[in-house]
Amino acid sequence: MPLTLDQLNAASVAQATQLLDGLYEHSPWIAQAALAQRPFKSLAQLKLALVDVVRTAGLDPQLALIRAHPELAGKAMVSNTLTAESTNEQSKAGLTQCTPEEFAKIQQLNADYNAKFKFPFILAVRGPRGVGLGKAEIMATFERRLGNPVDFEVAECVRNIHRIAEIRLDDKFGVTPEQGNLVWDWAERLATHSDPGFAERGELTVTYLTDAHRAAAQRLSHWMRTDCGFDEVEIDAVGNLVGLYHGTDRSAKRLLTGSHYDTVRNGGKYDGRLGILVPMACVQALSRQGRRLPYGIEVVGFSEEEGQRYKAVFLGSSALTGQFDAQWLDQKDADGIAMRDAMQHAGLCVDDIAKLKRDAAKYLGFVEVHIEQGPVLNELDIPLGVVSSINGSVRYLGAITGMASHAGTTPMARRRDAAAGVAELILYAEQRARSEPDLVATVGMLEVPSGSINVVPGRCNFSLDVRATTNAVRDACAADIRAKLAEICERRRLGFGLEETMRAAAAPSDPALQAQWARAVETLGLPSTPMPSGAGHDAMKLHEIMPQAMLFVRGQNSGISHNPLESTTSNDMQLSVDAFALLLDQLAAVH
Amino acid sequence: MPLTLDQLNAASVAQATQLLDGLYEHSPWIAQAALAQRPFKSLAQLKLALVDVVRTAGLDPQLALIRAHPELAGKAMVSNTLTAESTNEQSKAGLTQCTPEEFAKIQQLNADYNAKFKFPFILAVRGPRGVGLGKAEIMATFERRLGNPVDFEVAECVRNIHRIAEIRLDDKFGVTPEQGNLVWDWAERLATHSDPGFAERGELTVTYLTDAHRAAAQRLSHWMRTDCGFDEVEIDAVGNLVGLYHGTDRSAKRLLTGSHYDTVRNGGKYDGRLGILVPMACVQALSRQGRRLPYGIEVVGFSEEEGQRYKAVFLGSSALTGQFDAQWLDQKDADGIAMRDAMQHAGLCVDDIAKLKRDAAKYLGFVEVHIEQGPVLNELDIPLGVVSSINGSVRYLGAITGMASHAGTTPMARRRDAAAGVAELILYAEQRARSEPDLVATVGMLEVPSGSINVVPGRCNFSLDVRATTNAVRDACAADIRAKLAEICERRRLGFGLEETMRAAAAPSDPALQAQWARAVETLGLPSTPMPSGAGHDAMKLHEIMPQAMLFVRGQNSGISHNPLESTTSNDMQLSVDAFALLLDQLAAVH
Repeated sequence: MPLTLDQLNAASVAQATQLLDGLYEHSPWIAQAALAQRPFKSLAQLKLALVDVVRTAGLDPQLALIRAHPELAGKAMVSNTLTAESTNEQSKAGLTQCTPEEFAKIQQLNADYNAKFKFPFILAVRGPRGVGLGKAEIMATFERRLGNPVDFEVAECVRNIHRIAEIRLDDKFGVTPEQGNLVWDWAERLATHSDPGFAERGELTVTYLTDAHRAAAQRLSHWMRTDCGFDEVEIDAVGNLVGLYHGTDRSAKRLLTGSHYDTVRNGGKYDGRLGILVPMACVQALSRQGRRLPYGIEVVGFSEEEGQRYKAVFLGSSALTGQFDAQWLDQKDADGIAMRDAMQHAGLCVDDIAKLKRDAAKYLGFVEVHIEQGPVLNELDIPLGVVSSINGSVRYLGAITGMASHAGTTPMARRRDAAAGVAELILYAEQRARSEPDLVATVGMLEVPSGSINVVPGRCNFSLDVRATTNAVRDACAADIRAKLAEICERRRLGFGLEETMRAAAAPSDPALQAQWARAVETLGLPSTPMPSGAGHDAMKLHEIMPQAMLFVRGQNSGISHNPLESTTSNDMQLSVDAFALLLDQLAAVH
Repeated sequence: MPLTLDQLNAASVAQATQLLDGLYEHSPWIAQAALAQRPFKSLAQLKLALVDVVRTAGLDPQLALIRAHPELAGKAMVSNTLTAESTNEQSKAGLTQCTPEEFAKIQQLNADYNAKFKFPFILAVRGPRGVGLGKAEIMATFERRLGNPVDFEVAECVRNIHRIAEIRLDDKFGVTPEQGNLVWDWAERLATHSDPGFAERGELTVTYLTDAHRAAAQRLSHWMRTDCGFDEVEIDAVGNLVGLYHGTDRSAKRLLTGSHYDTVRNGGKYDGRLGILVPMACVQALSRQGRRLPYGIEVVGFSEEEGQRYKAVFLGSSALTGQFDAQWLDQKDADGIAMRDAMQHAGLCVDDIAKLKRDAAKYLGFVEVHIEQGPVLNELDIPLGVVSSINGSVRYLGAITGMASHAGTTPMARRRDAAAGVAELILYAEQRARSEPDLVATVGMLEVPSGSINVVPGRCNFSLDVRATTNAVRDACAADIRAKLAEICERRRLGFGLEETMRAAAAPSDPALQAQWARAVETLGLPSTPMPSGAGHDAMKLHEIMPQAMLFVRGQNSGISHNPLESTTSNDMQLSVDAFALLLDQLAAVH
């Protein structure tokens, strides 16, 4: 019989510690300390309590916890001295059936890792969906993590230990994240469509109106209709996939939600797509219960957000806000194909784009679920984040020019070194952005063109990207950096050019919708600390015509995104489905 | 009748000022002040006294001097209100015969230049050989100088004003730098040979054993034999051109001198070649006088110093020091041609290379004349420099690795920005090298590979080049920079790699030979401030087996080298021929 929360909450400390035995390898003190937080209203809350015990224990107990774990496919496995839980997990990952070569490789990795970090490599081998990772994936992760700094690996090992404990806890409680797994499976299936040139390498790239892009829309529309029970599904004039689940009153306002299904080049499976699949899972649940809400739910899979094929971005959401610029139709892709022709080729009715503009009066607002694409939730060990604002951003391309001269013969005092000027700018931008919360400045592109080892740089090209929660904070920072650039170049006798290439206004969340997300997250037993979104999202466009608020889902691997390593767990996706369902109920109560 | 120094030295101040009238446009105060330094023992000393008056006068009189000059092909030329000297010069440069388009272009450049700098553009239009520059060259220089910073252009205008005064002074004194012009003409003629792919673009590139390289050696050998009167001339087994002018006693020790005749890609006409042509001019003078010194003079045109075609460098001088590594013969060029095959193709007797090793006991030592390849003499307004040491150098290629992450979503405190780490390193290297005299550190190559405007740099590649007068100073600086790199990466949680790719020991000049150069320069009425050589030279190799000392000749255009803008004047080359001839006489007196 699986354990229940009621049982756990009611048990004595000794009994309860026994009930949670085996969660953390040879470390019952964690469960014992966490039990002081009883009663738990959810498994998520219990998991967070366990995480907090380890987090507040400090470094030495964390290292002891890590060292209490066996090596992967190590001596303990060979000598059969693993805990029952570890034996089960390592065998599910196929580690007990290694070839001699694989075994030798893992032993080498173990030796290298131990030599560098002085503790064993910990990986939750049952992976983000709770099933075994492949041996190849395990070894790739092992090799990648060998390159990390020590403090990062301590944190990463502890995170993996918590993930192992989460799966063991689910097993104990007989719980499966069904909807999280559904979203996981949909995302995997959707990722089988990729553009030519990338698909062959197993990379995911889905750009506007390619065959893979149209196939993804087709597959989503099929799931909406057949699996989820949407009442109306269509692909609109810009390629947006729009699914409608009517409310009890078809003329009542609708809740608008969704995100984009295009990807960057060699991107991840969740960026954008999660925001389509999570509401689909909720509509499926409503439909299976035969339940209607007082308002309709309109789920949009935006066709384009990333600006990969054409220079214009937010093509899909711009159509909904009436800002689709007809001049964009003449833009050409790298193969010289005009956007208009690509749309014609896909059977889209270009002339109807203007009709896609939504009347804000007919909507409750726009909500969007999105993978965080950043490290905050991962580092805080919190699965969900409530977005307070989408940051405003401004981008520049610049160059400093000096005088290329002989590195051996030009005395330091007589140099006009363009790269040294940019170096000063980079450090100033970093320090300036650090001086305020929720402000970031990045020099992402940096190059001395045709630089030589023995030539003082005569030119250095760079980019600058500044983002902040408010336009005022962003603009003040950008102005300071521009002033510093001028000051540096004046002092160093350098020239410079700086061109603004992009500017997007900050989009603060609607307080009422943000409060609804916060309430939903708290109902799940989770904290609802507000956080800004550093990245731009479709919600940023919708913001211009209606209230909006976003929910972030924790990403694995430090929240890396725009990268194949982008990942989240089916448990976290389940929590986002749960939060979305609660939001729907809460809105039903007030509308 | 031309003026003589005796006349000038004997005249009253008023008379003398009158004698020097017209040297500086509307600015007799300069000559008047310089006359306080009489008597002058050479024209070079008088020129330097004039330069010192302007240098010590400060900025305002310098600006007034610049503004006392007419615009190039400006209103004054059109309205015939130029001084006689200016009219002569502007007309020799063809500026009085401009097409309407050229005239309009020059007016636009004048307007742009005046708007930026608030003073007129000054260029010595009679150029480095004292004949008129072409209109195309004038306009290219005009456009290039428009990009300079203000303080640099003030200095560059003043330098051009001194050059104009030098030519006017030579005219007054009826003096022509005959040997300087000879060297100039030889260098021009030699520069007509250039490798395929460069010759077509008018670029000078002469790499080891190409047709152009072999033609250059052939032409030099012809001049040595026929024009200069060398007794023996041969091309040796590594392609060095060796000319011998016997002394009175053929068994006496010889003075070894020379430099290289290969070039970098798209290089200058004087780098290396000056050190062959200057002693050739001296031998020509001796031979025409039928004069023999007590010692022989051996002039070597080294075949290879720059390391452009093959990875190995100093091929020519290495053969003379017995350090030619037979393994180098297997090195291949970009077309896959082995060095051995290239030598075979050129008819060189590879097996005899070992026999080229010189017996140091048979030589007085090695002296080398070289264009400075740096800005020091140019900025000090001194034509010649006595080298105290050839700097030791060490080079590295490195990379800092961090974590590529989203520029919008990664908070500043959580970043592992590889470029910011390198930025810190660049500024540290700059500050560390500035902390000691005669020490330079350069990060010449810098790149975030595949950097994106919206991605925190995960990797940044860089180079590091450190040079100093002594190995100890160089090594201490390099060690500090390496330690800083480790500290930066530790603090910023970054990884790094650093590979040493080159190391050359410092070569301090032989005190006795250096003193001989100093004495020769002082005899010319010039200061002999010692200066280090930042660049490596053939003398660096010869240093390993015999005493050596070098003489530097001022370069124009801030001393730029490894660049088609590399230049010097026939006056400065004449002074280097004069100094070399004095050195020969001085050595004759002691040997």
